[in-house]
Amino acid sequence: MMKLYYTPHTCALATHIALEEVGATYATTRIDFASNQQRSPDYLKINPKGRVPALVTDRGVLTETPAMLAFVAQSFPAAGLAPLDDPFAFAELQAFNSYLCSSLHVAHAHRMRGSRWVDSGDAVAIAAMQRHVPQSVTAGFEQIEHDMLKGPWVMGERYTICDPYLFTLAQWMEADGVDLARIPRVVDHRRRMSERATVKKAIAQELGGPLR
Amino acid sequence: MMKLYYTPHTCALATHIALEEVGATYATTRIDFASNQQRSPDYLKINPKGRVPALVTDRGVLTETPAMLAFVAQSFPAAGLAPLDDPFAFAELQAFNSYLCSSLHVAHAHRMRGSRWVDSGDAVAIAAMQRHVPQSVTAGFEQIEHDMLKGPWVMGERYTICDPYLFTLAQWMEADGVDLARIPRVVDHRRRMSERATVKKAIAQELGGPLR
Repeated sequence: MMKLYYTPHTCALATHIALEEVGATYATTRIDFASNQQRSPDYLKINPKGRVPALVTDRGVLTETPAMLAFVAQSFPAAGLAPLDDPFAFAELQAFNSYLCSSLHVAHAHRMRGSRWVDSGDAVAIAAMQRHVPQSVTAGFEQIEHDMLKGPWVMGERYTICDPYLFTLAQWMEADGVDLARIPRVVDHRRRMSERATVKKAIAQELGGPLR
Repeated sequence: MMKLYYTPHTCALATHIALEEVGATYATTRIDFASNQQRSPDYLKINPKGRVPALVTDRGVLTETPAMLAFVAQSFPAAGLAPLDDPFAFAELQAFNSYLCSSLHVAHAHRMRGSRWVDSGDAVAIAAMQRHVPQSVTAGFEQIEHDMLKGPWVMGERYTICDPYLFTLAQWMEADGVDLARIPRVVDHRRRMSERATVKKAIAQELGGPLR
């Protein structure tokens, strides 16, 4: 049985929702950031990068949300979460998810994880990064609003693995200081996602999950 | 015929090499960063994100290196550049490429593109980012050295789309201040890649290409 290592309020939620969407049988284990459990020797054996999420499969451990999402789609093809046999359509989907991980999530991370990119004691530079987050994250969501979100779902009529990923990053918009009035289609997408039973179940499970 | 929009010394080289590896018929167009051509109205019609690379196909435009690399592999399956029919192996490959775009390339970008994450006039914060690049990029390559590069190629015995991508980011190690002595396997991979005819051809074409 697969096992998803997650922390609430992280991008692990995207894969969690996808596992619900395909009806997978899986377990979850919560990793506690407050005690720095993601850097513990036990967890580093699972994911040497010391990050969540990680997905333990019968073949080994997978990391990185775009890869995990495509894995879920490809492992459960009947759920139709990705156009696996159409190289161009699959690449469009992957380009969207790649933008989320390499641009939008990175812009967001400068609010809480600035010490990845400057010396951890440099409070001035870390504060400078934090001040810029509303602008950079809003710009990222505006790009999605205007050029990438086809509607009603990210890739158009078909719900895909892009949708839980966008929804997950859209959880952080208020805390990032995003001007929601500028991205009504993204906000509407988030609302429709939040009404799905699969999404409600994944969120409830994460927030209610016991610490290991 | 496909057309690759590129700028020398950018991650466009990864897709360029992959196109050579599969024997694709393609054209290239050089985008001039010095004149900010990536933000010109003409280019923004091709890629609204204002970045390179972009790959024009007969179905439309693709962006984001991990997506473009998988597209090339899937469009030319006989070249065997990705284990497309093995969800776990394909996910491992994608996790590697996702790490490159979301972690390693991002760490590198803080040397030249700091104004993405702080106000562009904040010279103090931008200098703080630049000072941290040797540490963060070295740490990223060490992760690859110890936990990700299976050898002799990234995914083991089989040469895949991970190899040109790692090679491309490894072009920047000296300028990023990486301590090469700490990553001998990455350095050896770069040397072996540089000896491939496909790699030599792609690099020569980029450096010799005329401005549009």
